[in-house]
Amino acid sequence: MNFKAFVYVTLKQGYSDPEGETTSDALKGLGYNVSSVRSSKAYEVIFEAADRKKATSLVDEMCRRLLTNPTKDDYRVEISEL
Amino acid sequence: MNFKAFVYVTLKQGYSDPEGETTSDALKGLGYNVSSVRSSKAYEVIFEAADRKKATSLVDEMCRRLLTNPTKDDYRVEISEL
Repeated sequence: MNFKAFVYVTLKQGYSDPEGETTSDALKGLGYNVSSVRSSKAYEVIFEAADRKKATSLVDEMCRRLLTNPTKDDYRVEISEL
Repeated sequence: MNFKAFVYVTLKQGYSDPEGETTSDALKGLGYNVSSVRSSKAYEVIFEAADRKKATSLVDEMCRRLLTNPTKDDYRVEISEL
C-alpha cells in the first residue's frame, strides 16, 4: 500500500526563529495586524508500507533518523492512504 | 478576533526540488521504500481580523504580497480561530 505523509518540522519553544521574526516585521510593515509568525519546514513523503500502523511507525522512524533534529525540533505528521 | 493561519508553500509542478530529491535518496539509502519527497516551507501566522471571511482574504493577500512567489510557488492555507 502507498501512503502520503506530511511532516511539519518546527523549532521547539524557546529557540529563536529569525526568519519568522523578520517575516512578522515585514507583514507589520505592510500594514497587517500580525502578532507572530513561526516558520517551519514541511516534507511530503510518498512511501510504501504494509498497513497504516506500520506506516505510522515508519514515518516516525524517518523523522527521528533523518528529517528532524530531536534536540531542537518538534514535528507533527499527517498520514493518508493513496 | 484572533486567527491562526498555516500557510504551506511548495514549488509548482515542473520545478525541480533538489532538497526533496536529496532527502528521497537519503531515505532510500537508509532502506525505506520511498518513491518521492517534496520539500516545502510552512508559516504559522497569528493575526487579527474582523471575521473569518476577512481573515481568509487577508491571508490570501499576505501570501501574494510577501509569503510566496506566485510565479513559481503553489500555496495552501488552513485557518482556525483562536
